[in-house]
Amino acid sequence: MGQNLIYLIPVLGILSLLFTYWKSSWVAKQDVGTEKMARIAKSISDGAMAFLKAEYKVLAIFVAVVGVLMAISGTTEGSSPIVGISFVIGAFCSALAGFIGMKVATKANVRTTNAARTSLGKALEVAFAGGSVMGMGVVGLGLLGLGTLFIVYSNMGWEINKVITVLTGFSFGASSIALFARVGGGIYTKAADVGADLVGKVEAGIPEDHPLNPATIADNVGDNVGDVAGMGADLFESYVGAIVGTMVLGAVFVGITGFESTNDFGGLNAIILPLVLSGVGILTSILGTFFVKVGDGGDPQKALNKGEFISAALMLVATFFIVDWMLPESWSDAAGTTFTSMGVFWAVIIGLVAGLAIGIITEFYTGTGTKPVKSIVNQSLTGAATNIIAGLGVGMMSTALPTLVLAAGIIGAHYFAGLYGIAIAAVGMLSNLGIQLAVDAYGPISDNAGGIAEMADLPKDVRQKTDKLDAVGNTTAAIGKGFAIGSAALTALALFAAYMTTTGLTSIDVANPVVMAGLLIGSMLPFLFSALAMNAVGRAAMDMIQEVRRQFADIPELKAALAVMKKNDGSEYKTWSDSDKSTFDAADGKAEYGKCVEISTKASIREMVLPGLLAVISPVIIGFGGGAEMLGGLLAGVTSCGVLMAIFQSNAGGAWDNAKKMFEEGVEIQGKMYYKGSDPHKATVVGDTVGDPFKDTSGPSLNILLKLISIVALVLAPLLS
Amino acid sequence: MGQNLIYLIPVLGILSLLFTYWKSSWVAKQDVGTEKMARIAKSISDGAMAFLKAEYKVLAIFVAVVGVLMAISGTTEGSSPIVGISFVIGAFCSALAGFIGMKVATKANVRTTNAARTSLGKALEVAFAGGSVMGMGVVGLGLLGLGTLFIVYSNMGWEINKVITVLTGFSFGASSIALFARVGGGIYTKAADVGADLVGKVEAGIPEDHPLNPATIADNVGDNVGDVAGMGADLFESYVGAIVGTMVLGAVFVGITGFESTNDFGGLNAIILPLVLSGVGILTSILGTFFVKVGDGGDPQKALNKGEFISAALMLVATFFIVDWMLPESWSDAAGTTFTSMGVFWAVIIGLVAGLAIGIITEFYTGTGTKPVKSIVNQSLTGAATNIIAGLGVGMMSTALPTLVLAAGIIGAHYFAGLYGIAIAAVGMLSNLGIQLAVDAYGPISDNAGGIAEMADLPKDVRQKTDKLDAVGNTTAAIGKGFAIGSAALTALALFAAYMTTTGLTSIDVANPVVMAGLLIGSMLPFLFSALAMNAVGRAAMDMIQEVRRQFADIPELKAALAVMKKNDGSEYKTWSDSDKSTFDAADGKAEYGKCVEISTKASIREMVLPGLLAVISPVIIGFGGGAEMLGGLLAGVTSCGVLMAIFQSNAGGAWDNAKKMFEEGVEIQGKMYYKGSDPHKATVVGDTVGDPFKDTSGPSLNILLKLISIVALVLAPLLS
Repeated sequence: MGQNLIYLIPVLGILSLLFTYWKSSWVAKQDVGTEKMARIAKSISDGAMAFLKAEYKVLAIFVAVVGVLMAISGTTEGSSPIVGISFVIGAFCSALAGFIGMKVATKANVRTTNAARTSLGKALEVAFAGGSVMGMGVVGLGLLGLGTLFIVYSNMGWEINKVITVLTGFSFGASSIALFARVGGGIYTKAADVGADLVGKVEAGIPEDHPLNPATIADNVGDNVGDVAGMGADLFESYVGAIVGTMVLGAVFVGITGFESTNDFGGLNAIILPLVLSGVGILTSILGTFFVKVGDGGDPQKALNKGEFISAALMLVATFFIVDWMLPESWSDAAGTTFTSMGVFWAVIIGLVAGLAIGIITEFYTGTGTKPVKSIVNQSLTGAATNIIAGLGVGMMSTALPTLVLAAGIIGAHYFAGLYGIAIAAVGMLSNLGIQLAVDAYGPISDNAGGIAEMADLPKDVRQKTDKLDAVGNTTAAIGKGFAIGSAALTALALFAAYMTTTGLTSIDVANPVVMAGLLIGSMLPFLFSALAMNAVGRAAMDMIQEVRRQFADIPELKAALAVMKKNDGSEYKTWSDSDKSTFDAADGKAEYGKCVEISTKASIREMVLPGLLAVISPVIIGFGGGAEMLGGLLAGVTSCGVLMAIFQSNAGGAWDNAKKMFEEGVEIQGKMYYKGSDPHKATVVGDTVGDPFKDTSGPSLNILLKLISIVALVLAPLLS
Repeated sequence: MGQNLIYLIPVLGILSLLFTYWKSSWVAKQDVGTEKMARIAKSISDGAMAFLKAEYKVLAIFVAVVGVLMAISGTTEGSSPIVGISFVIGAFCSALAGFIGMKVATKANVRTTNAARTSLGKALEVAFAGGSVMGMGVVGLGLLGLGTLFIVYSNMGWEINKVITVLTGFSFGASSIALFARVGGGIYTKAADVGADLVGKVEAGIPEDHPLNPATIADNVGDNVGDVAGMGADLFESYVGAIVGTMVLGAVFVGITGFESTNDFGGLNAIILPLVLSGVGILTSILGTFFVKVGDGGDPQKALNKGEFISAALMLVATFFIVDWMLPESWSDAAGTTFTSMGVFWAVIIGLVAGLAIGIITEFYTGTGTKPVKSIVNQSLTGAATNIIAGLGVGMMSTALPTLVLAAGIIGAHYFAGLYGIAIAAVGMLSNLGIQLAVDAYGPISDNAGGIAEMADLPKDVRQKTDKLDAVGNTTAAIGKGFAIGSAALTALALFAAYMTTTGLTSIDVANPVVMAGLLIGSMLPFLFSALAMNAVGRAAMDMIQEVRRQFADIPELKAALAVMKKNDGSEYKTWSDSDKSTFDAADGKAEYGKCVEISTKASIREMVLPGLLAVISPVIIGFGGGAEMLGGLLAGVTSCGVLMAIFQSNAGGAWDNAKKMFEEGVEIQGKMYYKGSDPHKATVVGDTVGDPFKDTSGPSLNILLKLISIVALVLAPLLS
């Protein structure tokens, strides 16, 4: 096989993209249902594309400017101006992955609704096919891009450290897009959501997803923009970052005795290992997708679990053989530390297990009916204030166990395989990303499908089926969020270790006051960043609220329909008088959805700039102003505090959300039943509204913040050393 | 003068205590006013003493057990079992300071009310006299204890490092009491407050501080327990910790050429400098208090500022001459670094300025009418949820500037005088603590005075005068909280540096995974600790709510009076029918205040144990389990994340509080006026209730957490090195 085996990496990437193409064609071929459904779906799809277009226009400028700066920075020794090209390609791949995911998700949503008119199994199939396009698209583009660039740069006659240094630009490009996609998407989705809820539901009293509400399409667009494209870009970044970080650390072993003899990669085995593991992960993910099937009356959760479990088991076995084959049984690095291939295998396993453990802990703190969520439910009895206090308490409390898991994981992975072990653990956690992300993206598609069923006035049993899919989606979303945070932390640590290696720093000593100052500033960034993101949501939501109010006041048909609704307060449509019915029906489609979509788009693009620039610029200022070691302190601070703030906010938000859901299903407190509309339920609505920007904007954006700052530092490293 | 100058330190401590005695006798001699006022004041005073008694009973066990453990730990080389005695004395001094402060505060409150019946100037005089007893008591006991122990241990024939090691036990004792006082006091005051508000104000509709509310006495007791004793213990700890930390670092210079020749301290100048500066601070604080005077119609804020300003200016001048006199013009340590006396002077100035700057920033983010608070006011228009989001945003945003000030302060102080500079900066920040704490403690006394005026049915102009004092108190409280956090951070850093020196670690390298794991766990502790504190408040408040509800249901006079109030909804008492009046009057004093006091006491004692033990035990586990360097990582994490969480929570709470106050005075939003009782005002009440445990329980407790963990580490240091 010889060195040609390296060429398998982009081939596996292409295979993944072919799978993506096959699945998306299949989705496109499904029936969209009634004319009304098609019209609604088109509005959502148009809105989503309009957002992406506006976003990418701004990002193109950013990418061009930073790409040139990168190229200039690449003129130093040990790098190359080509790093600018790596950056642009990384950004392009990330953007493309987002585009593909959104495109298919906005096709799959309405087709899932339509499939739910016949069977649950078929609906799951469509929704999951849509999700798997996102998942396999992300890993495919990641591996294709990284693999191809690695091969090209390897043939430039550069030494291996330079190859990898130039390759880090790809990861930085991916991070940049991820940051703006997460922040912009997060602001979009929450501005639309809060606007739709506060004016539509609370002020005007119309149900969620009702076509009378002008913000309802924007709300559904937001689910795609935030949860599909945002989550995809986030994990694309983790995936690429973990691989690149491991490659940097693997380069330390080049030239070590034993490596050149084990097989045919020419001594680069430790560098190529993360690529190979990820490549095999593509195969196991594709295999896993075939097991996700459910009959009518079956449990979609079990079907998803089965796919993930089979994929993970295959990956586990494959990892053993790959590691055993690619690495020597034992070797020593330049410093004399001894490593073993089995040590590396255990580090990968630690990554897999830690990811799983954090997911399960997340589910415990945020799942419907769990003890922490019940405590929020109980505290809602005395009003919104105690509900909020309880939710904040649960969120803060929920940081303890994941932190201990991470700490143990770091120590364990390092024990088995040094810094390389920490990085490869991150790769292990993410090796199955294809199917994991498919499961994640399935959630918002199901959510959208339910929205379309509501808007299109479909029979109740359709909504019941989509609700069943959606409920499973909420659980997978919670686990997925925990997983995203865990992988972000490990990736950031891998990049941190790579930064150390590249700068040649021997220590980052927090007893050095400059480092301590860096640590403090780094710890502060997640707070500042969260504040900026939340204020941005507040301002964007205000714009939306005013637009919805304006439409309710200015559009005569809407005004009349609202008056009729109020008059027939609570009674069913069929009991209304004929003239009321016709007034009401006349409003159908009169709401100017496009205006709301436009406002959310404009606001989110405007608001994503400041937090985005903060993340990119602060490591540059600290690095050049305070030196490499102070920047190291900043990285340590932003990683530790960022992980904690991310867990706190995501879990508090998730717990508030499910506390509200428990009331909607009916819940017993102190021997009395409470339902939707009761005072405690209203208290949980306040909690949920507070939790929304926590869990969908600022919390998940922090994942990116910490990875992005680490990757900027790594890119700057050759200039600082 | 010779070495005898050291004996001046305890003498200055005694002088401070004499001043305290003089002021408290003066307060005691003032008239208490009407019989009803006396009765109410006695209830508050009895409640406060009951709490202290119950608290000290539990703490006595803790102190005895830990004292013995400390004595055992002191059997290693370089220490002595006497460290256990230091611990017990430190704990005793802290407890005594709390006792003295509470005792006089609960006397001064009613006498302030009575003085307000005649003049504002007199009322200020009484309230400030009460506060200055707390302030001068804290510094007096601190300096007396430290100075005496230092003299005794110096005469034991030990070498100087051993003297200081044994002395650290004093600081640990102070910290332990501080932790329980802050946490217990914080839980007490918020349980009572939330209970009084939710059942009394919201459910039964009776005004704040109304005698019909059974929890109202407990609420007033809480102000003393939390804001007087808690704040005092907190700053006692900072004061002592900063001095001890500086002494440890000063010991590095013993034997350095130049020190023995400058004057008569026998080469120990760098060690004794913090004691001397603090001693002179006692004199300048006492002088400053004489300038706090106001005529009727005058501005109490200006009077307080004048006292603080004069005191600070005197301190500044004195510092210059003392540093110049005690330290050689320049010298070099063992590592060859050059120090200058002027460098040390600038480090002290940096501490003073940083403390001031953080106070001003705090005021900007939390003061009535400032831009951030106005943003919360505006967001309250759309309900409680947006009010909460805005407040969380303001709190997080407010971390940025103080962090930059701290970072700059650390770098600056280190630039001028190395690690010693950071420690002496903390001493500089705290040198004027006597008068600063007097101003702080004046706040809750004025608050209580207003409550007594309300409960005792005094004429409106009395309440107006106390309100004027109270409004000033709110500003000083905000600044004082910022100051407490800033000094805690610097003190923790001083202790951190002392820990490094004592363990002999050359670096604490965050690139070492074990240290990174320590950093993560350390960063997590403030979240966990806050969650425990908030949950504790929730549970304690539930107990209180149930008791108040029980009294309203079970006590016939209360029940009847409530019914009468409801019947005459909103109309003034004098317009009521005679029979209504007599039914209402019959309820006077029928509420069982004592039961509520008992419940708050029991709940807070019960709930303070878990978070308290967490703080003491975690550094022990990490230190012995993971080693000295991992514990160093833990310290770095808990310090950085702890400071941020403390600022975030304190400022969010302060901002919510003042946003509510702005509605109570009437505020214009988008051209429309809103007042108390409007919907946006109700939204701010929710925000304020969420903010209460933030700013009065978990936030300030974090100050202690980070100092305590640092001091535990310092005490363990000889065992780990």
